[in-house]
Amino acid sequence: MSVSDTNRFPSFEYLGDAVPYIERIGAIVAHIRLFEDFEAGELARLAPYLRCYRAPGGAEIIREGDDGDFMMLLLDGTVEILKVDPVTNLPVRVGLAGPGKILGEMSLVDGEPRFASCISMGSLLFAVLDRETMSRIIADESRIGIKLLMELILLLNQRLRHVSNELMQWLGQGRVTSIKP
Amino acid sequence: MSVSDTNRFPSFEYLGDAVPYIERIGAIVAHIRLFEDFEAGELARLAPYLRCYRAPGGAEIIREGDDGDFMMLLLDGTVEILKVDPVTNLPVRVGLAGPGKILGEMSLVDGEPRFASCISMGSLLFAVLDRETMSRIIADESRIGIKLLMELILLLNQRLRHVSNELMQWLGQGRVTSIKP
Repeated sequence: MSVSDTNRFPSFEYLGDAVPYIERIGAIVAHIRLFEDFEAGELARLAPYLRCYRAPGGAEIIREGDDGDFMMLLLDGTVEILKVDPVTNLPVRVGLAGPGKILGEMSLVDGEPRFASCISMGSLLFAVLDRETMSRIIADESRIGIKLLMELILLLNQRLRHVSNELMQWLGQGRVTSIKP
Repeated sequence: MSVSDTNRFPSFEYLGDAVPYIERIGAIVAHIRLFEDFEAGELARLAPYLRCYRAPGGAEIIREGDDGDFMMLLLDGTVEILKVDPVTNLPVRVGLAGPGKILGEMSLVDGEPRFASCISMGSLLFAVLDRETMSRIIADESRIGIKLLMELILLLNQRLRHVSNELMQWLGQGRVTSIKP
């Protein structure tokens, strides 16, 4: 609506808004889903929706390949993140995660099998949020729901940049050919 | 609230909800932000917020390292995605993207410099959505705003899985040590 909108690409042909392309866009983004309505609402009100657990050391909190519809927030303790090397079939440490880290968000979002396993290194305190509850929060506490969604976007984005940068370190070796799924 | 909630980790100590850990959680997730209220609304109503452009072939649609607060939806045509190899200082093709692909979403989310460049391969039709407009949509059309947020979550998640899987292909070589930023 502002002047800057139409001046973003001054060397290109400006076509106005997307009203003429509604059908095309509709066909393209036909995979939108979930969650409908929302209202107004914060963190103290989120807490009742979370479920907290303490695990002993050496416990498998998340197992690679399992179904999973929840993510967890680590409150105290550390987990080792392991992924099975398809060549050797042995688990390899791919990371560590401590308090404040969220685990399992990819499967929460897409319902696909767990990407890696998480093993507690000593006593572990964590809070669980599953997909159904997230839907309920968005339905019952819209303001909190939005913040959760925003938080998830920031988290996924941060990880995507991190992993993309790691992948790019391999670029010079010529084996990386696609980063756009 | 359901029985399954408390039975998710039957071998662990169940501590109830997170009310006792509010302060800790508050300190951990202190970086939540943006967007406040929302109502009801869909795609035909989203279209007026988008700005469409057509670019000729060989145009640099997005430049690696630039600031950018917008993402784009490709409607027609293809772009080549290039990233400068830090060793050779030459651009290397890291992917192609065609109609239905979204580009630039990482910088839209975090305001960090563009990760890669996008060059049109022939005439290109695309629709732009910037951060400010996204805020406005969420403010004025909550239902559409939520769907946009969900769409962004699905997109980022899909890319994260894809790039993580690519990175894991290198795991056997022993140089990958961390996927959890």
